[in-house]
Amino acid sequence: MIALGIDPGTATTGFGVVALHDGTLRLVDAGCIRTATSSSDADRLRLVHVALSSLVDAHRPVRIGVERLFFQRNVQTAMSVGQARGVALLVAAEHGLPVDEPTPNEVKQAVCGNGAAEKGQVATMVARLLNVSLERVPDDATDALAIAIGSVYRAAASRTDPVPAVRASRA
Amino acid sequence: MIALGIDPGTATTGFGVVALHDGTLRLVDAGCIRTATSSSDADRLRLVHVALSSLVDAHRPVRIGVERLFFQRNVQTAMSVGQARGVALLVAAEHGLPVDEPTPNEVKQAVCGNGAAEKGQVATMVARLLNVSLERVPDDATDALAIAIGSVYRAAASRTDPVPAVRASRA
Repeated sequence: MIALGIDPGTATTGFGVVALHDGTLRLVDAGCIRTATSSSDADRLRLVHVALSSLVDAHRPVRIGVERLFFQRNVQTAMSVGQARGVALLVAAEHGLPVDEPTPNEVKQAVCGNGAAEKGQVATMVARLLNVSLERVPDDATDALAIAIGSVYRAAASRTDPVPAVRASRA
Repeated sequence: MIALGIDPGTATTGFGVVALHDGTLRLVDAGCIRTATSSSDADRLRLVHVALSSLVDAHRPVRIGVERLFFQRNVQTAMSVGQARGVALLVAAEHGLPVDEPTPNEVKQAVCGNGAAEKGQVATMVARLLNVSLERVPDDATDALAIAIGSVYRAAASRTDPVPAVRASRA
């Protein structure tokens, strides 16, 4: 069972793909879609759309998570994040996939068991749950992995057949 | 020469299509794409994407205008408008069309010759320039028509061959 987490932005969109199999989480893919500042917003959003569509086609997630943000520096930033967010939601709808829109606190709760966890603590738990080093993974991708973990848990919880207990994988 | 103006929103997206031919403006199409509050944001944005794509396919504009907004009631509203705005920009990029992103003041300047014009004055001038009654046209569609008028003027101005002077059509 695979989920895709997205941390949207017009300049940088982080993505994370995780699998949950027999109660074990696994990192499938993670990275950032970066667009050129020299391009128009329209062209940048098109690139985000193409890249996210390719990720869905490649990994066939059963669920997509896109963080719901309430606080931004200003309206202009919110508008810019909203544009990329709209494209991410569109990709989900175009593939008929259910979308989670967790708040940052809900993401922290899902991976740390604490909605007020620090950013570093989230990264530590994501690495531990996926049993990988995230040293070379950009922050936006780590955030996206945390969102994906929350979504794959939710996908497992919404299955009608009995689900094995979720546990962290071991080295 | 045809331009499409868009006043984006997740709930209601206004659109206006105008033609400029031999210096005369003409109303081609105008209306609102309304989405159900009972649908998810993702499904609503998909509807906006499909509807705007259909409008572009039907009317073949040479240019698309999408208003650039700096002020919103709050971050959440800005995010919601941004989502629909992202989908509108995406449609333009998918069709390889140049995009104008005028500020509200620039739209007022284009149709009223005054960037500080009142809303009613904009509607009056849109009706006069297009030589139609806008009594039964929703506000969002009237705004979109004003944006389209600005874009079709700009399209005419960017043509390399001599362009006839723009004038209001007469009854």
